[in-house]
Amino acid sequence: MPPVSKKVHINVDLGEGYGNFKCGPDEELIPLIDHANIACGFHAGDPLIMANTVKLCKQHNIKIGAHPGLPDIQGFGRREIKMSPEELTAMVTYQVGALKGFLDAQDVPLHHVKPHGILYGMMYRDREVCRAVYAGVPKGTPVFGLAGTLHEEVAKELGLPFVAELYGDVKYSKDGTLVIDRKKKAWTQEETAQHIKSQLENSSVTAVTGEDVELPLGDHEVSLCCHSDSPGAVDIVSAARKMVDEFNQKYHSSG
Amino acid sequence: MPPVSKKVHINVDLGEGYGNFKCGPDEELIPLIDHANIACGFHAGDPLIMANTVKLCKQHNIKIGAHPGLPDIQGFGRREIKMSPEELTAMVTYQVGALKGFLDAQDVPLHHVKPHGILYGMMYRDREVCRAVYAGVPKGTPVFGLAGTLHEEVAKELGLPFVAELYGDVKYSKDGTLVIDRKKKAWTQEETAQHIKSQLENSSVTAVTGEDVELPLGDHEVSLCCHSDSPGAVDIVSAARKMVDEFNQKYHSSG
Amino acid sequence: MPPVSKKVHINVDLGEGYGNFKCGPDEELIPLIDHANIACGFHAGDPLIMANTVKLCKQHNIKIGAHPGLPDIQGFGRREIKMSPEELTAMVTYQVGALKGFLDAQDVPLHHVKPHGILYGMMYRDREVCRAVYAGVPKGTPVFGLAGTLHEEVAKELGLPFVAELYGDVKYSKDGTLVIDRKKKAWTQEETAQHIKSQLENSSVTAVTGEDVELPLGDHEVSLCCHSDSPGAVDIVSAARKMVDEFNQKYHSSG
Amino acid sequence: MPPVSKKVHINVDLGEGYGNFKCGPDEELIPLIDHANIACGFHAGDPLIMANTVKLCKQHNIKIGAHPGLPDIQGFGRREIKMSPEELTAMVTYQVGALKGFLDAQDVPLHHVKPHGILYGMMYRDREVCRAVYAGVPKGTPVFGLAGTLHEEVAKELGLPFVAELYGDVKYSKDGTLVIDRKKKAWTQEETAQHIKSQLENSSVTAVTGEDVELPLGDHEVSLCCHSDSPGAVDIVSAARKMVDEFNQKYHSSG
Repeated sequence: MPPVSKKVHINVDLGEGYGNFKCGPDEELIPLIDHANIACGFHAGDPLIMANTVKLCKQHNIKIGAHPGLPDIQGFGRREIKMSPEELTAMVTYQVGALKGFLDAQDVPLHHVKPHGILYGMMYRDREVCRAVYAGVPKGTPVFGLAGTLHEEVAKELGLPFVAELYGDVKYSKDGTLVIDRKKKAWTQEETAQHIKSQLENSSVTAVTGEDVELPLGDHEVSLCCHSDSPGAVDIVSAARKMVDEFNQKYHSSG
Repeated sequence: MPPVSKKVHINVDLGEGYGNFKCGPDEELIPLIDHANIACGFHAGDPLIMANTVKLCKQHNIKIGAHPGLPDIQGFGRREIKMSPEELTAMVTYQVGALKGFLDAQDVPLHHVKPHGILYGMMYRDREVCRAVYAGVPKGTPVFGLAGTLHEEVAKELGLPFVAELYGDVKYSKDGTLVIDRKKKAWTQEETAQHIKSQLENSSVTAVTGEDVELPLGDHEVSLCCHSDSPGAVDIVSAARKMVDEFNQKYHSSG
Repeated sequence: MPPVSKKVHINVDLGEGYGNFKCGPDEELIPLIDHANIACGFHAGDPLIMANTVKLCKQHNIKIGAHPGLPDIQGFGRREIKMSPEELTAMVTYQVGALKGFLDAQDVPLHHVKPHGILYGMMYRDREVCRAVYAGVPKGTPVFGLAGTLHEEVAKELGLPFVAELYGDVKYSKDGTLVIDRKKKAWTQEETAQHIKSQLENSSVTAVTGEDVELPLGDHEVSLCCHSDSPGAVDIVSAARKMVDEFNQKYHSSG
Repeated sequence: MPPVSKKVHINVDLGEGYGNFKCGPDEELIPLIDHANIACGFHAGDPLIMANTVKLCKQHNIKIGAHPGLPDIQGFGRREIKMSPEELTAMVTYQVGALKGFLDAQDVPLHHVKPHGILYGMMYRDREVCRAVYAGVPKGTPVFGLAGTLHEEVAKELGLPFVAELYGDVKYSKDGTLVIDRKKKAWTQEETAQHIKSQLENSSVTAVTGEDVELPLGDHEVSLCCHSDSPGAVDIVSAARKMVDEFNQKYHSSG
C-alpha cells in the first residue's frame, strides 16, 4: 500500500479528569498535538475542566473537537450501554452543545466531533447506533472515525465530512477495527514507532492476530490518535510527533 | 403601588422529569404559557427529555429559556451546595450550552436564562454567587430574576437584559425574596388568585409574615412564574392565564 | 399442569422513587402484599427513601428483600450495561449491604434478594452474569427468580435457597422468560386476572406469541410479582391479592 | 501539655479512587498504617474498589473503618451540601451498611466510622449535623473525631465510643479545628515531622495563625490521620510511622 496521501495530524483526548481526579498530562501534551478531543462530562470531564481545557487549547492554537461518550464516569465510557437511538442522538446533541457553550464563550469554532471509547466501537459494529450518534452532530461538522467502516459509510450517507483516523497506541483487529481495553496498557517506544511507521508509510498495520491489514484511507484528511491516559503518554506522543513531522516533511512538504 | 407597567407574560419550568420519572403535566401546561424554562440535566431533565421538550415548545411557539441548576438530581437543585465561582460559571455555561445544542438543532433561538431553585435564592443573597452565575450566561441573553435584588443589580453591572419575575405559587418574605420549599405544597385557587391579583394590579404582595411588600418592577419586562411541580399545577396556571389575559387586556391592550 | 403446589405469596418492588421523584403508590400497596423488594439506590431509591420504606414495611410486617439493579437511575436499571463479573459481584454486595444497614438499624432480618429489571433478564440469559450477581448475595439468603432458567440452576450450584416467581403484570416469551419494557404499559383487570389465574391454577401461562408455556415450579416456594410502577398498580395488586387469597384458601388452607 | 497518654495509631483514608481514576498509593500505604478509613462510594470509591481495598486491608491485618462522605464525587466530598438531618442519617446508614456488606463477605469486623472531608468539619460546627451523622452509625461502633469539639460531646451524648484524632498533614485553626483545602498541598518532611512531634510529645500544635493550641485528648484512644491524596503521601506516612513507633516505644512500650 502507498503512504498516506495527505498531510497527517495528531489528535489526543483531553480533559478526561473529573473533579479532583486527574487523567493524563494534558499540559505537556497540548504543545505536541494538532487536534484535541475534549471530554464533555459524560464519561469524564466536568464543566470546570472543560472550561480550562478549552482555554489551554486556545492558547496553543489547537483545533478543538467534542468527545462525547456514554453516560458512565465510573466505567470511563468503556462499558457498553444499550440506549435507544433517540437517547443516543439526544446524548450527543447535549454533550456537543455543552462543549460549544465553552467554545462560544471563548470565541473558538468547533472543529470536529469524535465519539469516545466503547461508543466509537459500537458505531462501527451497528449501523443504527452509528446513525443515531451522527444524528446528534451539528450539520456540516467533520466527524473523526475509522475509514472503511460504518463510520465512513454513515458519515457519507448523512453528509458529514469525514476524517480518517490512525491509532498510535491502540492495536487493530484483522478487520481493521480496534481492540479496546478498559485500562490502557504500556507500550514500548519501539512498538509504538513500528506501529505508527507502518500506518504512515504503507497505509497498513499488523493486526493482533498477525495479519497485515490495509487501511482504506482514500484521499480523506487523516488524524493520528494517541491517548492521554496511556502509560508513558508524553513519550508516545513525542515519538508520534517526530514521526509525523518527518513524514509530512518527506511526503507533503508543500501542504 | 400602581399596576404592572408592562404587558405580563407567564413562565413555567418544564422538562423537570428524569428518565422514567415524570414531573409535572408539561403537555397540558405548554398551551397556557408564554415562556418555558427548560431544565438542563443538572437538577432534573435528561437529554431525551430536553429534546422532546424543546420540540413541544417549538410546536406551540413558546419562547424557550435555559433553566440551569445545581448538580443535584437527588435534591432537585433545592439543597445548597457551596461551589467556587469558577465552578458556578462553568456549570452555567455547560448547561446553557447543552440546551442551546437542542435549540440549534431545531432552529429556535435562546430566549432567556433563569437559574433554578436554591441557586436562584443563593444569587440574591450572595453577590459573588450572582456574578459567577451570570458570568456563565451568553452575552446579551436576558436573565429572569427578582427586581430590587442582587439579580437586577448584577445583571445591570454585567450588561445583561433583565426581566422581572412575579410568582404565582410561591410565597414572599417581607424583604421581597422567596420562601422556597423542597417540595411544593398545595394552594387553593382563591389563594392563588388573590396572590396574583395583588401583584398584577398593585405591584405588591403580602409576605408570609403579613406585611405588604412593594415589588420594585420599574419598567422592566415582567414574567409571572408558576411551577409545574405544584400540586394542581394545571388549575393554577389556568387561573393565572385567565388573570394575566384580563390584566393585559385591561391595561396593555395595545401591547 | 397442576395448580401451584405451595401457598403463594405476593411480592412488589417498592421504594423506587428518587429524591423528589415518586414512583408507585407504595403506601397503598404495602397492606396488600407479603414480600417487598426494596430498591437500593442504583436504579432507583435513595437513602432516605430506603429508610422510610423499611420503616413502613416493618410497620406492616412485610418481609423485606433487597432489589439491587444496574447503576443507572436515568435508565431505571432497564438498559443493559456490560460490566465485568467482579463489578457485578461488588455492585450486588454493595447494594445488599446498604439495605442491610437500614434493616439492622430497625432490627429486621433480610428475607431475600431479587435482582431488578434488565439485570434479572441478563442473568437468565448469561451464566457468567448470573454467577457474578449471586456471588454478591450473602450466604444462605434466598433468591427470587424464574424456575427452569439459569436463575434456578445457578442458585442451586451456589447453594442459595430459591424462590420461584410468577408474574402478575408482565408477559412471558414462549421460552418462559419475560418480556420487559422500559416503561410499563396498562393492563385491563380481565387480562391480569386471566394471566394470574392460569399461572396459579395450571402452573402455565400464554406466551405473547400465543403458545402455552408450562412453568416448572416444582416444589419451590412461590411468590407472585406485581409492579408498583404499572399503570393502575393498586387495582392490579388488589385483584392479585384476592385471587391469591382464594387460591391459597382453596388449595393450601392448612399452610 | 504532657505527651499523649495512650499508645498512638495511624489512620489513612483509602479506596478513594473512582472507576479508572486512581487516588493515592494505597498498596504502598497499607503496610505502614493501623487503621483504614475506606471510602463508601459517595465522595469517592466504587463497589469494586471497596471490595479490593477491604481484601488488601484484611491481608495486612489493618483495622477497617467506614469513611462516609457527602454525595458528591465531583467535589470529592469537600463542597458543603445542606442536607436535612433525616437525609444525613440515612446517607450514613447507607454507606456504612454498604461497606459492612464487604466486611461481612470477607468476615472482617467494622472497627470504626470516620466521616469524610467537609462533612467532618460541618459536624464540629453544627450540633444538629453532628447528631444526624452519628445517628446513622451502628450502635456501639467507635467514631473518630476531634477531641474537645462537638464530635466528642455528641458521641458521648449518643453513647458512641470516641477515638481522638491527630492530624499529620492538615493544619489547625486556633480553635483546634482543621483547615481543609479542596486539594491537598505539598508539605516538606521537616514541616510534617515538627507538626507530628509537637502533637505526640506535647498534645499541642501551632495554629496557622501562630498560636499554640492545646489538644484536649484526655485519656481517649488516639489515632493520627495522614492523607493518601497528599503529594508525597508515602514519604509523609513513612515519617509518621517512624515517629509514632518511636513515641509508642518511648512512652507506651508496655501497651
